Formats: sequence, structure tokens, C-alpha cells
Amino acid sequence: MDKRVSIVMGSDSDLPVMQQAADMLAKFGIGYEIDIVSAHRTPEKLVEFASNAHKRGILVIIAGAGGAAHLPGMVAALSPLPVIGVPIKSSNSIDGWDSVLSILQMPGGVPVATVALNGAKNAGILAAQVAAAADRSVLEKIIAFKEEMKEEVMRKSEKVRNNLK
Amino acid sequence: MDKRVSIVMGSDSDLPVMQQAADMLAKFGIGYEIDIVSAHRTPEKLVEFASNAHKRGILVIIAGAGGAAHLPGMVAALSPLPVIGVPIKSSNSIDGWDSVLSILQMPGGVPVATVALNGAKNAGILAAQVAAAADRSVLEKIIAFKEEMKEEVMRKSEKVRNNLK
Amino acid sequence: MDKRVSIVMGSDSDLPVMQQAADMLAKFGIGYEIDIVSAHRTPEKLVEFASNAHKRGILVIIAGAGGAAHLPGMVAALSPLPVIGVPIKSSNSIDGWDSVLSILQMPGGVPVATVALNGAKNAGILAAQVAAAADRSVLEKIIAFKEEMKEEVMRKSEKVRNNLK
Amino acid sequence: MDKRVSIVMGSDSDLPVMQQAADMLAKFGIGYEIDIVSAHRTPEKLVEFASNAHKRGILVIIAGAGGAAHLPGMVAALSPLPVIGVPIKSSNSIDGWDSVLSILQMPGGVPVATVALNGAKNAGILAAQVAAAADRSVLEKIIAFKEEMKEEVMRKSEKVRNNLK
Amino acid sequence: MDKRVSIVMGSDSDLPVMQQAADMLAKFGIGYEIDIVSAHRTPEKLVEFASNAHKRGILVIIAGAGGAAHLPGMVAALSPLPVIGVPIKSSNSIDGWDSVLSILQMPGGVPVATVALNGAKNAGILAAQVAAAADRSVLEKIIAFKEEMKEEVMRKSEKVRNNLK
Amino acid sequence: MDKRVSIVMGSDSDLPVMQQAADMLAKFGIGYEIDIVSAHRTPEKLVEFASNAHKRGILVIIAGAGGAAHLPGMVAALSPLPVIGVPIKSSNSIDGWDSVLSILQMPGGVPVATVALNGAKNAGILAAQVAAAADRSVLEKIIAFKEEMKEEVMRKSEKVRNNLK
Amino acid sequence: MDKRVSIVMGSDSDLPVMQQAADMLAKFGIGYEIDIVSAHRTPEKLVEFASNAHKRGILVIIAGAGGAAHLPGMVAALSPLPVIGVPIKSSNSIDGWDSVLSILQMPGGVPVATVALNGAKNAGILAAQVAAAADRSVLEKIIAFKEEMKEEVMRKSEKVRNNLK
Amino acid sequence: MDKRVSIVMGSDSDLPVMQQAADMLAKFGIGYEIDIVSAHRTPEKLVEFASNAHKRGILVIIAGAGGAAHLPGMVAALSPLPVIGVPIKSSNSIDGWDSVLSILQMPGGVPVATVALNGAKNAGILAAQVAAAADRSVLEKIIAFKEEMKEEVMRKSEKVRNNLK
Repeated sequence: MDKRVSIVMGSDSDLPVMQQAADMLAKFGIGYEIDIVSAHRTPEKLVEFASNAHKRGILVIIAGAGGAAHLPGMVAALSPLPVIGVPIKSSNSIDGWDSVLSILQMPGGVPVATVALNGAKNAGILAAQVAAAADRSVLEKIIAFKEEMKEEVMRKSEKVRNNLK
Repeated sequence: MDKRVSIVMGSDSDLPVMQQAADMLAKFGIGYEIDIVSAHRTPEKLVEFASNAHKRGILVIIAGAGGAAHLPGMVAALSPLPVIGVPIKSSNSIDGWDSVLSILQMPGGVPVATVALNGAKNAGILAAQVAAAADRSVLEKIIAFKEEMKEEVMRKSEKVRNNLK
Repeated sequence: MDKRVSIVMGSDSDLPVMQQAADMLAKFGIGYEIDIVSAHRTPEKLVEFASNAHKRGILVIIAGAGGAAHLPGMVAALSPLPVIGVPIKSSNSIDGWDSVLSILQMPGGVPVATVALNGAKNAGILAAQVAAAADRSVLEKIIAFKEEMKEEVMRKSEKVRNNLK
Repeated sequence: MDKRVSIVMGSDSDLPVMQQAADMLAKFGIGYEIDIVSAHRTPEKLVEFASNAHKRGILVIIAGAGGAAHLPGMVAALSPLPVIGVPIKSSNSIDGWDSVLSILQMPGGVPVATVALNGAKNAGILAAQVAAAADRSVLEKIIAFKEEMKEEVMRKSEKVRNNLK
Repeated sequence: MDKRVSIVMGSDSDLPVMQQAADMLAKFGIGYEIDIVSAHRTPEKLVEFASNAHKRGILVIIAGAGGAAHLPGMVAALSPLPVIGVPIKSSNSIDGWDSVLSILQMPGGVPVATVALNGAKNAGILAAQVAAAADRSVLEKIIAFKEEMKEEVMRKSEKVRNNLK
Repeated sequence: MDKRVSIVMGSDSDLPVMQQAADMLAKFGIGYEIDIVSAHRTPEKLVEFASNAHKRGILVIIAGAGGAAHLPGMVAALSPLPVIGVPIKSSNSIDGWDSVLSILQMPGGVPVATVALNGAKNAGILAAQVAAAADRSVLEKIIAFKEEMKEEVMRKSEKVRNNLK
Repeated sequence: MDKRVSIVMGSDSDLPVMQQAADMLAKFGIGYEIDIVSAHRTPEKLVEFASNAHKRGILVIIAGAGGAAHLPGMVAALSPLPVIGVPIKSSNSIDGWDSVLSILQMPGGVPVATVALNGAKNAGILAAQVAAAADRSVLEKIIAFKEEMKEEVMRKSEKVRNNLK
Repeated sequence: MDKRVSIVMGSDSDLPVMQQAADMLAKFGIGYEIDIVSAHRTPEKLVEFASNAHKRGILVIIAGAGGAAHLPGMVAALSPLPVIGVPIKSSNSIDGWDSVLSILQMPGGVPVATVALNGAKNAGILAAQVAAAADRSVLEKIIAFKEEMKEEVMRKSEKVRNNLK
């Protein structure tokens, strides 16, 4: 399966959160790669990675980081691809605000598509939605996924209403 | 020109900000439509709009709103397309925090790709990057745009260094 | 007993908090219904529910949700009834601020009567106070409830003062 | 016209904001009274006012205050009626956070129905919705008001779409 | 021993924190009384207490409360005595911000001397410092207390420096 | 007139705010001194001032400062007298939060009686209340002042009610 | 004069703030260079600059940026020199919090010495203090500068005290 | 080994965090001293320490404190040396914000080089970088340390990539 999405994160401690992005992509049948790229500890690798991803057929990049999270923004600086940023609530973070603001508040010209704190699952879905622009069969899978979510809520709704009686 | 991007906003007071998204799309030669859809005042129009956009060939939706900003998230609930949310600092907003958090902190399963406060320009670029997944000629334009930005900074850099001497 | 209050919540994980609203209504002898309605996962159910509640004799709606909480505001958009919003501190919330601001900061024209974070008990009391506008016997029960609270504090006060001696 | 709603505020500097609540009530044909009651400067008047409002046929109280805003909560402590709190962004407020949190975060047993910062217009609508519980003709006016808002958005929407062409 | 300081709190759950104020007063040999007075649940008791404390020889009042904490400010509204407010981080508080801002941000004319979140120990010391204005022997005790603190730090300092070697 | 209160501030730019404390003391007939003492620029003067104020008959110290405001806390470290801290919203402050938290959040053992942001008027009243512990004639003046405030509100209340008719 | 300090900033709009760092260095007789280096728009220049500064005799780098400010942290990632970060309150910043947290909250291993919001003057002084480690004559200048500040406060103090009389 | 760096902290409870600064200095072979100096409990020791450190050959001071953290700023007021401030998240801190803002937001003229919340490790590295200005052999050690960090990330990166296959 061709790799269409690249998932990178600043530290291996981010893996439990970022794995949820990978799981969603697997569910939608979209090929991905996953790696650690630290903006602050391996800046050369960052440059190499971000400058070349689009040349390898990658369509969209997911980057997760905590604290003063520079990885998503620096990847966006170097790559022409859409970059999805995942703020991660790491230890010593100030309640996640540092990570959220470091990723979200990018200057004009260099967007990062930011999702919720620890929202890697949504990053995976968003990446699939981007891939769907090129492959409309993925759109059908997303429509089906939304239907699944609805049915799960409907089942829970029924349970709550029955418990009441 | 086929319309690939739909720009919606909650109020006509959001137009000066949201116009910047339209301007970027025009620059990249991507067709778009623009409209006011209020989640709170025209909920039926919201449902109609969001449920059908993908059937009309729209690839990505940009939604901007201020305060308790529900438009981007509700569009994302109803549409399988990627939704880019633009938090807007409206009057009576609590410094923009309400708009940012209402758009960013979506639950698992329903992503909104959030950009910076008043970051409609970046929303336009991001939409172009999504469109580039389907049309690689757009990717070339984005690469050229990044080159332009670089050159502008280089010119300013030279000026600053010369002033010093 | 006729159902006068409708309690809805975005997820079954909100039930332990929202049950406190139901308990207060039971205490005041006011009929209620309770259900899960997800603004983001079951938007069609949301529209159906909120558009019709007032036609079934419901007098007031209590809606609880966490994170980017759109349920209370969207119900208020669709229903002419008073809507009481309960911000819920869910996991991955940014300390509850997202939920509070998403519910509180509604635009002019579409109010949500917001209570404290996790304040479902107060939502139940408030709903009873609204019902009391139509049925003054409920007002008597509220006056009695306030008297009970007072007496409980007086008992604790006595205990604290006695311990001191 | 019988007075059904009582509007109180902590200072005459709050009047420009609080007048919007009165205007909405006038629009819905609901009688109201308006007065200054300072929790901190006229605590005896506060007690007298809040203890007796329900005996004069008042159905709902709207209370607005800025800074460490104790008026809404103290009225709610003393009155069995539903109390709607309006946080006001006064000078020397810390961006309105003090007023919002002082009104919103009431303890269990003593609710205040809080609206957005400076959201007196919505407080007026909410009071009308409470009055509608006793007088269903008001509900019709609220439905009509929602229709008006919708039409205004539709007119603006048309204008935006026409400007584009 | 004459009672010079009155310690009140909104709920018995505040007692573990507020006891620290009592302990400091005991240490300085200053008589005190302690009681529960809830602004929201026993407003009449609040009025009675705060209006009369200065007539019983009380010199200063310490009032602690959590959430939308109105007790210190309302006591200050009703009493001519200096009021020391202790913000308490209760359950369901938004990280203590609600309590801090509700107590600190009093309007001009009605001061509350606010101490740190959960800072009841300092409230006790401050009350002793006020009492020292009338009884300079207390000032000597405060000077001695400051000396004690200094010596304790010096002992710890020596330990840290010795551990190093 | 003997000087009973010492007012110090970190910078002459704080004078317009701090003058309000002096005005209240003048109103209550309490002697005061006023000076600039910068914790960061004149630390030796700080030590000299704070170590000796109580030896000159001063009963209470009011200290105002902005940003990382260390003056009130350092005075409290060095003086056995009660210290009232006034957070000041200076230019480059982060909305006043830095000043508020630097003054309020003192460690156990070293209290600062903090008033609202820019709340120097209340600092003056609080200082008078402390002085009243030693001179009960001041208490009468405070009671009269509270009566004045009440009457002013009553006059405004009448005006608002008359305008309505 | 040899250049010992390098001042870089993300945009020419940062120049009015960052010039204050240059002014302090000029005052202390320390040679510096000044340039625009945008982490997001000229990432290659960033790498080139930060990787080589220490090879040219630069002792310390001052980097200023606003919003999601990645320049200081990325320079610190690439350079072994001490990096001083200046958070700048740019337009569309969320009150400066984004810039402060993006610069301050660096992960373990990659420090940025952060100064106050818009605190470029202090960045210049700090750079001089670093340079003083290698050239103790600079230390004398810093001691003299502190003396100057003290004298200026003393003059203002005298003025305030005289005005009072 | 000559002591070049002085590490001070406000309380022995800060030691587990501050020890990390010492560990980094030990790693870089830089001599240090470590002590408790409380700005609030031992102000005279603070003055003595900070006024004289530069006379004993100390090149840089690291000061850590929690809550209303005045130690770093007061050391900076008294010493001409560069001062590195470490905000510490102590119990009863308001999520660390108090400590961060008390240290970071110093007024013009008196810098503190602030690191992340609990960022003592980075304070140690920064102190080494300052020492490197005087002893370029330390710069080599810092370059080597950065290389180590890079290799560690590369090893983890390989592991993550291998796990995937």
C-alpha cells in the first residue's frame, strides 16, 4: 500500500496519543509512515524530512508535539503539503495551553491545521478527508464512518431511555 | 471556473476577515463560493448547506465564526468534507478565547482544522493545499508562493542590515 | 405525570453529572424525559428533537455537553423554549474552559442559561423555577427547599461552634 | 401592564448594557421594572428587594453586575424566583473574567442562569422565555422573533452572494 | 480571653483550610470565634452576623469561601471592620480562579484584604497584624515569629550545604 | 498630624493610581507619608524602609507595583506591620495578571493583603480600617462613609426609576 | 568593534521593540549585528544562521518573535550559544500569551532564556551580562548602569516627597 | 574545582527540581554551590548573598522559586551577574502561572533569564552556555551534548519505525 500520510512526533512519549491517528488511517485503508522527528533535538532531520515528503508521494503530514511545540509549524514552513498539528498535553506543560498556542497561532502564510488537545484521532480523520480529495472512494468510507458513529449514539440513547422507565 | 471551496461565515461582520481566505484562493486560481450561514439564526440553512456541499463538487469548506462559534463544528458534523475553522475575535468576545476553544476542542470523530485567531488567510492557503491533493498543479503554485514569501523577507532583511551600517 | 422538562446530553459519559438534574426535578415532583442527543454525531436527531420539544408540552430544556460543547447552543437555535446549558468537564477538556465558553458566549438573539461547570443540580433547580412560572405550587416547594438548605447549614454551624469549645 | 420581570443592576454605569434587556421585554410586550440595587453599597435594599419580589407578582429577575459581581448570586440566595445573571465588563475588570466567574460558578442549590459577557439582550429574551411558561402567547412572539432573525440573515446572505458575482 | 477575630466560612468542607487561620491566632494568643455562615444558603444569618460583629468587640473578620465566593465581599458590605478574604479551591472550582477573582476584584468603596488561594495561615497572621495596631505586644510576637521562620530556613540551608559536600 | 500609614510604589508612573489611597486617608483624617521605593532598582532603600517603618509609629503599609510586582511581598518580608498590596496594570503587563499573581500568591508565613487591580482607593479604606483597631473614632468615620455610599446609590436608583416612568 | 551579539527577529514589524536590545548593547559598548530571520518564511536562512553564529565569534544570540514564536527555540536547537528569547505582542496575538508560551516552555535539553513580553531592553542587558563573563570590564559597566537606575529613582522619590509637603 | 555557578532556591521543597540544574553543571564539569535563600523568610541573607556573589568569582546565578516567586527578581536587583530564574509548580500554586509570571515579567533594567516551569535542567545548561563565553572548552561539551541528544532521538526513531513493520 502506498504511503499517503506521514505521522511524525517530537518524542516517543507522544506515541500513545499519536497512535490513534495511525489507527484511523488504517481503518480508512490509507497507507502511512510513522516516525520521531524532534524539531529541537534533530533539526537537520526535520529539514530533510519536511523538505522532501511531498516528493515521495505523501499527500498530508500529521505532526504532534507538546510544550513549546515547534514541530508542526516548522514542518509547515518547509513543506508545501497541508500539515495537521496535534497539541499534546505533556508533563510540565502548563495545562496544555503552551502546546495549543504554539501550534495554533501560526503567522499569515504558513498554516497548521490544528486539532484539539491530544486530538490525534481527529488528525487521522482529517488526513483521510484530505486524501479523499484525490480519491473519492475514501469519501464513501468517511460517510460510512459518520453513519457508524450515529448508530452507536442511537444505541446508547435507547439504553438511557430504557433505563429511565 | 468550478467551485471547489465553500467559504461560510456566521455574520456579515465576519466578512472583512473572511475575505482574506477568498483572496488567497483567487491567487491560487481555485474557484470558490462565499455565503453567510448562521448556525444559531439559520439552523435549517446550515443543515441544508452542510449536508449537500460534497454533492456539488466542493472539496473543502472554510467556516468562520466568533464567540460561542458553533458553525465550523456543526458543518463538520453534517459534511464528510474537511472543514477548516476560523476563530474570529468579535466584539464582546472574551479576548477571542471563546471562539478559539469553541472551534478547536471538537470531540473525537468530528475534526475541525482550526487556524489562528482571525487567520482566514491561512485558511485559504490550507484549502488550496487540500485541493492540491487532487490537482498537483496547485502544489506548484504553493511552492512558488512560499518562494515569494521568502524573497520578501530577504528584501526586508537586506534593508534592516543596510540601515544598521 | 406529564413531562415538562427535557434533559439531553452529548454523550453517555455525561450521565453521572446530568443525573443530578433529574434528581432535583424528581424531588420537586416535575415530570421529565432524559436522552442522549449528540450535536456532532446525530445532528439530524438534534434538529428533530429541538424543533419539536415545545409541541409536546415541554416547558424547558436542559442540555449538557463537554469540550467544544455545541449541543445547548444548537438546541437554543432551534427551539423557542428556554434552554439551560450545563458545561461538563470531560477528559481532554482544557480544564473545563472550552465547555464553559462554548456554552456561555452565545450571540445576541439566542440565549443559553448557563450554570456552573458540572452544575447539573442547579440546572434542575432552575428548570423547576421556570416551571414554577406556570405552576405556583412549585414555587412553594422551592421556598421549602431553600429552608431545608438553611437548616442543614445551621446544624453544621452548631457543630463547628460546639467543637471549638 | 403588570410587571412580570424585575431588572436590577449594581451601578448606573451598567445601564447602557442593561437597557438592552428592557428593550427586548418591551418588544415582547412584557411588563418590567428597572432599578439600581448594589449588593455591596446597599445590602439592606438587596435583602428587601430579593426577599419580596415574588410576592409582587414578579416571575423572573435579571441582575447585572461587573467585577466581583455578587448581586445576581445574592438575589438568587434570597429569592425563590429564577435569576438571570448578566456579567458586565466594567473598567478595571480583568477582561471580564472576574464578572463571568463570580456569577457563573454558583454552588449547588443556588443557581444563577448566566448569559454571555454584556449579554443583556439575551437576558431579556430568556426572561421572556420564562414568562412564556405561564403565557403561551409569548411563545408565539418568540417563534416570530426567531423567524425575523432568520430573515435578516437571509437578506444579508443574498447581498454577500450578489456582491461576489 | 476576649474574642478579637471572627473566622467564618461558607461550608464545613472549608474547615480543614480555615483551621490554619485559627491555629495562627492561637499561636499569637489572640481570642477568636469560628462559625459557618453561608452567603447563599443562610443570607439572613450573614446579615445578622456582619452587621453586628463590630458591636461585640471583634476587630477583624476572616471569611473563606470557594467557587463564586460571595461571603467575604458581602461581609465587607455589611461590616465597618477590616475583612480578610480566603479564596478556597473547592471541588468543581475552575482551578481556583473563580474563588480568587470573586473575592479580590471588589468595587471601589468596599475592600476585601485577599490572601493567596487556600492561604488561611496568612489570613491568621494578617488578623494578628491588625490586632497589633491596638496591642503592640502582639507586634513583638510577630517579630519573634518572623525570627523563627528565618531560623528554620537557616537550619535547612545548612543541611543542604552540608549534603553537598 | 502623626503619620500612621506609609504609601510606597515602585515607580512614579504608579502615582495616579496610588494617589487614590492617599485621598481616602485624607478623607478619614489619617496622617500618611508617600514615597517611591523600587524593589528592583533601589533594593537597599527597600530594606531600610521596610525594616524601620514600625519603629517610626507607622501602623500599616500600602505598597503598589505593576508587572512582576515584588515590592509588596518584599516589604512584608522585612516588616512586622500589615502590608496592603495594590496590583497595578502597567504598560507591557499581561492584562494585569502578572501583577495580581505576584502580589497575591505569597507563601505561608508572609501575608500581603491584596486588593483589586488598580484598587488603591480600597487600599486606603483598608488602611483606615486597620487604624480603626487602635482608634475607634475612625470606625465611626467608616460607618459614616458606608452610609454616604448608600445614599449616593439611593439617589441614582431614584433617578433610574423616575426616568423609566 | 567585533560583533559579540547577534539580534534576529521574525519580521520587520518587530524592529521597534527589538531596537531596544541594540540600544542597550550600544550603551555597554558591545558590538552587535541585527537581521531578520523568519523561522517560518526563511527556514533555510534560519538553519544557516543558527548553525554558524558561534563560528564567527558571536557569544550570545537574541531572538524576538510574536504569535506562535518558533524562532528563538529553533535557533536554540541549532546553536550551542545561549539564546535569549523576546516574546513580542503582535497584532492577532492572543494578548501575548501565544508568544510567551511558545518561547518559554522549551523541552529539557534546549533552553531559551526568556524575558518579559516586549522585554527587548532586558534582553540587551542580559546579553551584556553574558558577555561580561568573558570581559569583566563589562561587569563594571553593568554595576554603573544599576547605580544610574538607582539615582534616577532617588530623584523621582525626592520629587514625590516634596510635592506632598 | 572553582565554583562558577551559584544555585539558590526559596525552600527545601524545591530541591528535587533544582537538583537537575546541579546535575547538568556536574555533567559539563562546571563547579557550583547550592543553598536555600528565601526572599521572604531570610531577606537579609538574600541581600548578603546577591550583593557579593560576583565578588567570589561566581559567573552566573540560578534561582528557583514557586508561587509569588520573588527570589530570582530580587537577586537580579542586587547582583550585576546574569540571573536564570526557574519557576516551580509548588502546592497551592495556581497551576504554575503565579510562579511563571512573577519571574518572567521583570521591569525594564532588571532582567531575569526565565526557563520553563520546573525547567531546572535547562537552567543548568544555560548556565553552562554562559560559562562557555569565558571558557570555550565548555562550548565543545555543549556541542557534544547536543550530539548525544540527537543520537538518542535517532535510536528511538529507528525503534518506532521498526515496530511499525
